[in-house]
Amino acid sequence: MPELRRDPIVGRWVIIAAERGQRPTDFAPERVEAGGGPCPFCPGSEDRTPPEVYAERPEGGDADGSGWIVRVVSNKFPALQIEGQPDRRAEGIYDKMNGLGAHEVVIETPEHGTELALVPLEQVSAVARAYRARIIDLTLDRRFRYIQIFKNHGAPAGATLEHSHTQLIATPIVPRRVDEEIKGFAQHYELKERCILCDVIHQEIDSQRRVVSESEHFVAVVPFAARFPYEVWVMPKFHGAAFEHLTDDQIDAFAQIFRETLQRIHATLDGPPYNFVLHTAPVNDPKGPHQYHWHFEIMPKVTKVAGFEWGTGFYINPIPPEVAAAQLRSAL
Amino acid sequence: MPELRRDPIVGRWVIIAAERGQRPTDFAPERVEAGGGPCPFCPGSEDRTPPEVYAERPEGGDADGSGWIVRVVSNKFPALQIEGQPDRRAEGIYDKMNGLGAHEVVIETPEHGTELALVPLEQVSAVARAYRARIIDLTLDRRFRYIQIFKNHGAPAGATLEHSHTQLIATPIVPRRVDEEIKGFAQHYELKERCILCDVIHQEIDSQRRVVSESEHFVAVVPFAARFPYEVWVMPKFHGAAFEHLTDDQIDAFAQIFRETLQRIHATLDGPPYNFVLHTAPVNDPKGPHQYHWHFEIMPKVTKVAGFEWGTGFYINPIPPEVAAAQLRSAL
Repeated sequence: MPELRRDPIVGRWVIIAAERGQRPTDFAPERVEAGGGPCPFCPGSEDRTPPEVYAERPEGGDADGSGWIVRVVSNKFPALQIEGQPDRRAEGIYDKMNGLGAHEVVIETPEHGTELALVPLEQVSAVARAYRARIIDLTLDRRFRYIQIFKNHGAPAGATLEHSHTQLIATPIVPRRVDEEIKGFAQHYELKERCILCDVIHQEIDSQRRVVSESEHFVAVVPFAARFPYEVWVMPKFHGAAFEHLTDDQIDAFAQIFRETLQRIHATLDGPPYNFVLHTAPVNDPKGPHQYHWHFEIMPKVTKVAGFEWGTGFYINPIPPEVAAAQLRSAL
Repeated sequence: MPELRRDPIVGRWVIIAAERGQRPTDFAPERVEAGGGPCPFCPGSEDRTPPEVYAERPEGGDADGSGWIVRVVSNKFPALQIEGQPDRRAEGIYDKMNGLGAHEVVIETPEHGTELALVPLEQVSAVARAYRARIIDLTLDRRFRYIQIFKNHGAPAGATLEHSHTQLIATPIVPRRVDEEIKGFAQHYELKERCILCDVIHQEIDSQRRVVSESEHFVAVVPFAARFPYEVWVMPKFHGAAFEHLTDDQIDAFAQIFRETLQRIHATLDGPPYNFVLHTAPVNDPKGPHQYHWHFEIMPKVTKVAGFEWGTGFYINPIPPEVAAAQLRSAL
């Protein structure tokens, strides 16, 4: 069973996942497998993944059969384990609990060798519907407090399989980064009785200096204090705490600006590796952090994060956000 | 002038350093230059660096001349700029200040092609004396609040020059990670009237499960909630807030266990890329965080940090700390 351990000084939780039995020699540089070989995410290989937990089949068809345009399966090598209870306990002055959670893979397209920036718009909508459906379904499991949607694209961003996919991890605790944001939202609300991200969005749309693109209900912005060159946040202009509350129409509008943003990054940086993460409100919280404002953070990997960043939590970004935004705006 | 910008939600400061005029095409994968070519850190090339701010010359000799065993110079491409005042100001709801600071390079050895794990012990002592001297000297500049010592070893860890070196950045603010630790130390002190890291060290020495090595005054431990495989912290067993308070004898004892730890990592992981950072008390703080306990964090780069880690601040470590410690213990 993997274990969740809490750092005694700063309170950060770490997943200690020894299930894969890795040894030092297993840490050769990771490679994304070449296209053409047998890929477990391709149509016809449905029996090579764990059973599906969600799929969209426009023409109908059986679970784990063909005809899907998006398919979600459990991760074959999960970082967390679905069975059991958290069982929080001490080890002397330390805190730990069972590494309880769900770890799933969203296969974004049946087509091997393409990527989310390049698939048709309807496909991106289907992917966003899969995110929404999985968050709603996993929320029914009362053990979970957070559902993290994230993508590693390209080997330098941590991807180990080439076929385009997103990952999802559900955890029994609210991760530190999200918790810090919740505190930031609450602090601003206490002072101003407004949402800090609503305020940010208003200022950005007024100034236009860092806006990458804008539609009726969404906006893509290079954040004022971007950690990474060409980092972009895609946010709803309306206040919404939880991604999974989007309607079908809103999903389509989100998919449009999200895909366009990925295309702008692809064009500006020649198809770079990147990560994205969805920051959305915790689940199964009876009080509900209604002050939260969900957003996607997209982080191209064009520089290396080195010792200074690890040591200080303080990033060096060589591209001013205004310059990055101007380049991304003129990219398409 | 570089700029320091504060994230409006979580309060993280970012350095926006556009001085180098980089464009997207400059982001080719970084390479560490091959040995043999002209290296600005080699003896005889002293005029190819900015003037030295510190050097140790056992046989004497002129500044910026030969005969040094350790030499510290300003970084030729600094992330922060030494002249001026912080000039904190607003941009609407945002906060920013001038990117004021010092950025220096500690050239650890005259010999090109070696590394800190492999040089003689006296050389590591000289490097540690250089760290101490630079912290003491930069503290005289009352604009600085923190002095960050860090090392990027190998291209995957962010190094761009092969000749073995450490970097130092002095900043007008206390970085977030250190500030979080200070809060953690203060919280524990309030509850227990003890130092949390002193408590950790006692428990680790009692159990021995995660101890890598131990000397009279120092200990090297794989932390209970290690973020990275084979992460090791080197700590004084006595309570000390600031690295720069070490005596010469303590410097020698520190150098011994520090070098030995780097050697254990080198042997276990076949000379991996790594980062290390010194966490020490902020400077020019009249109250002084006496509760702080300085330590070095050494982080081999054997896995990639991907979207999940960025999105959540919550790491997946596939090697249990007890397993890593056992391997490191038996490495030499």
